[in-house]
Amino acid sequence: MPEHNTVSMPEFTHSDTRISELLDFMHQITDLQALGALAEWDQNTAMPGGAAEVRGFQLAALQGVLHELWTNPRLGILLNELRERVQQASFSDADRGLVREAIRYYDRAAKLPRQLVEEIARVQATSFEAWRSARAHSDFARFAPMLTRTIALQREVADRLGYTETRYDALLNEYEPGMTVSTIDRLFVPVREVSKSLLHRIEASGNAIDASCLEGEFPTEKQLALCELLLHAMGYDFSRGQMAQSPHPFTTSFTSPYDVRVTVRPLVNFLQASLMAAIHEGGHAVYEQGSAPTIARTPVAGGASMGTHESQSRLWENAIGRSEPYWQGQIAAVKEAFPYQFARVDLTTFVRALNKVHPSLIRVEADEVTYNLHIIVRYELEKAMVNGDVAVETLPGLWNAKYREYLGIEPTNDAEGVLQDIHWSSGFGYFPTYTLGNLYAAQIFNKLHAVFPDFDQRLARGDSAFILDWLRDHMYKFGAIYPPVELIERVTDESPNPQYFTRYLNAKFEKIYGLPQTR
Amino acid sequence: MPEHNTVSMPEFTHSDTRISELLDFMHQITDLQALGALAEWDQNTAMPGGAAEVRGFQLAALQGVLHELWTNPRLGILLNELRERVQQASFSDADRGLVREAIRYYDRAAKLPRQLVEEIARVQATSFEAWRSARAHSDFARFAPMLTRTIALQREVADRLGYTETRYDALLNEYEPGMTVSTIDRLFVPVREVSKSLLHRIEASGNAIDASCLEGEFPTEKQLALCELLLHAMGYDFSRGQMAQSPHPFTTSFTSPYDVRVTVRPLVNFLQASLMAAIHEGGHAVYEQGSAPTIARTPVAGGASMGTHESQSRLWENAIGRSEPYWQGQIAAVKEAFPYQFARVDLTTFVRALNKVHPSLIRVEADEVTYNLHIIVRYELEKAMVNGDVAVETLPGLWNAKYREYLGIEPTNDAEGVLQDIHWSSGFGYFPTYTLGNLYAAQIFNKLHAVFPDFDQRLARGDSAFILDWLRDHMYKFGAIYPPVELIERVTDESPNPQYFTRYLNAKFEKIYGLPQTR
Repeated sequence: MPEHNTVSMPEFTHSDTRISELLDFMHQITDLQALGALAEWDQNTAMPGGAAEVRGFQLAALQGVLHELWTNPRLGILLNELRERVQQASFSDADRGLVREAIRYYDRAAKLPRQLVEEIARVQATSFEAWRSARAHSDFARFAPMLTRTIALQREVADRLGYTETRYDALLNEYEPGMTVSTIDRLFVPVREVSKSLLHRIEASGNAIDASCLEGEFPTEKQLALCELLLHAMGYDFSRGQMAQSPHPFTTSFTSPYDVRVTVRPLVNFLQASLMAAIHEGGHAVYEQGSAPTIARTPVAGGASMGTHESQSRLWENAIGRSEPYWQGQIAAVKEAFPYQFARVDLTTFVRALNKVHPSLIRVEADEVTYNLHIIVRYELEKAMVNGDVAVETLPGLWNAKYREYLGIEPTNDAEGVLQDIHWSSGFGYFPTYTLGNLYAAQIFNKLHAVFPDFDQRLARGDSAFILDWLRDHMYKFGAIYPPVELIERVTDESPNPQYFTRYLNAKFEKIYGLPQTR
Repeated sequence: MPEHNTVSMPEFTHSDTRISELLDFMHQITDLQALGALAEWDQNTAMPGGAAEVRGFQLAALQGVLHELWTNPRLGILLNELRERVQQASFSDADRGLVREAIRYYDRAAKLPRQLVEEIARVQATSFEAWRSARAHSDFARFAPMLTRTIALQREVADRLGYTETRYDALLNEYEPGMTVSTIDRLFVPVREVSKSLLHRIEASGNAIDASCLEGEFPTEKQLALCELLLHAMGYDFSRGQMAQSPHPFTTSFTSPYDVRVTVRPLVNFLQASLMAAIHEGGHAVYEQGSAPTIARTPVAGGASMGTHESQSRLWENAIGRSEPYWQGQIAAVKEAFPYQFARVDLTTFVRALNKVHPSLIRVEADEVTYNLHIIVRYELEKAMVNGDVAVETLPGLWNAKYREYLGIEPTNDAEGVLQDIHWSSGFGYFPTYTLGNLYAAQIFNKLHAVFPDFDQRLARGDSAFILDWLRDHMYKFGAIYPPVELIERVTDESPNPQYFTRYLNAKFEKIYGLPQTR
């Protein structure tokens, strides 16, 4: 990729002795954090159930060590010296980002006592196993005690971190620096409205999509091979990654672009789940792999926030990966993997099937129109839990009621209801970043079309390298050097604006479902 | 297993405040060590090649933290107070073992500076990748520079640890506390003699074994399923373990009996490799899983030494796993997995095939008669490297010459020669423990037959639980509470004695090959 080799990379000012000393601290910390990420990856992909408790001890021991490193007085002195100084012109944006993020974590460590951090790690490990068992048995009661414990711990974390408006803001900031409940509530209004309105218009139209080509018998091994092909085609580098299986697909990076792994979960009777998960996790993964090697092993390596991260998984999965031009370039691989099933399926039928709007119970399989309604259910319940407005034992009922209200359907058991996501085995504040990601994705997608007038044509030829190259050079390589909102502004030349998403959604699904255009 | 539930477990004297404080130190250290073990497991089973260098940084950072913990002055004071005191009758053997092992590691940490330990970890990670690449390309030159570096580091380690007779003693003690080159040289003489003499007598007899039933087409998936069956039958607990694949089979325990994993490497055309590797690694694994939960997360959890560990893999693999009674109980599973290949193969033919004596180039596939000659080649080369008596670039030639001398055959490339083992990517002193293990295994096998007069009959009925129960109660549960030689004495009521092995080997192969009996 000659384009990629010639672009300039962000650089730290190694010649400055304070930056250099700070980097030594940061390398040690992030190298140890990588072992924690590995332990979590292993917990999800390989670890035997009997090891859950000792894994909790191991993570707690690591958290203890990390806490000590983050509260090292010499680090405090160093950051204090750099805080103002790094604003001088002789320093780089990378330096400023590094100092900003280091201060954020340093302050956080100062506010959260070591005992609490260790306790959280222990509870997370046990809670994860409780969740896994509860989900397998579709029995919320097995998970409830650990969830109660998690709520108490998350409230304590929020209180210690501090907040100006609501307790939930403190938790949100852990994943999306600078974001608040009031901003999210404002951004989410048009999203909720367009989702409900589009869903209503689609259902009222009586127009149906036949998605039966995605159902049938798709052997796991062939699905896995196809997922690897798609990942390869989108530029995911297997020499710096791996694809495994886990109950809930996810991406892990070990604080460097050199080891970024994804998981999928093939369903033998439903092809869409694994394919879209592969492209989704692939989006996360190419973002991480695109982080500049010059900033590896520091807190600014990787993504800027969960929201910007999700913007990339959603951009690749939905805006690109559910479009007709994309599949024009990739459908041959699907037909080759499953020649019998797709012998009589044409491109348009396949793409329409991938875009079928159908209120479902499972978030990770939701269509683009209803997806954000799934998020809003979780966001509202999280806020209630964190604010102490809800008794844990009532959650399954509340969950089911909200599904009926927003999506018109109701889970028949906890496994497909309140237990479906892994997230609440560790904490709160993460879910809304998924919808933020959708907003950012639409805005970036709009920008890409402006930059590349022949975007669809190139994609239809099977080429997506031009997209990856542009994103690497304008977004990925910067990691967390810029705060999320500033990064989105740099990439799109505009502040986060939910209208790109509402316009994208309306235009796409009005066309697919043959609805009258809103504009 | 009611027998196992009623046996007494070793116990620490938690009521003693010093023991209790020491345990807090040990738990923290071993929990962190477990993350290092996980990183190494991952490196062998999942990690992408591109991550080799950063993995080295990660392990080095962990080594640094561990070094700091092991050299904590408070730990030194505590151990000093306990050193004599723990000999009092009010303390348990577990306490004494814990203090002995803690002192051993504390002294080691005091002698090896942190910078050296970190450097070793970094070199190991890079060296492992160099070895993997060199082996894949059968090109020793790719590995030589890292091996040179490893030799220099190992010599420095030996010099810092200290020794009375030879530099190699210091490295040997890392794996086999209390063992020396002079003892090993003495123990190995009868082993070398019986191996060479038996090999000569077998070759001279002209009697041949037809092992063709083990060759053919054995799909990997079916081999893996069969390995799992055999592991399950020997009492390996999958709820506290996992079986994966790696280029070189191995067992890892994460410093607790709750997570003990094995790997195998099926060869599609040769069934023996995966089956015997599964039983071999299974032996290591049931030893680790049998370590008492009461001593988990301490330096005395797991095995007493590499030699005692290998005694269990060899006991299960060879003494039990290559015997006719064992396969009388297990052959049905083989026939079910591969009905076509084994339709006309009877028990005796199958077992004779597993015991075919045939000088080969690959250690892990060697028969029992030639196995120790493979070890002696490596042991002699290691001593030469550590003593500085050999130039690295001459190693492939020396290796090949020794194979010609001891086994009468010569590798045609480095992959099947000097590059076949992973071990030299980390260090020296390990190989002789394999042959020590064979000696201990024969001695314990003799004891088992004395304890259970109906040993063969029970085994032939498919029962091996009685063996596992006895070994757990008389050996496994004690972990490293007793030094290796003392443990062997406790298990067998006798000091290590090579005659058990020579008698076992002669008797077994004289019978199989119809040779005149030596006694």
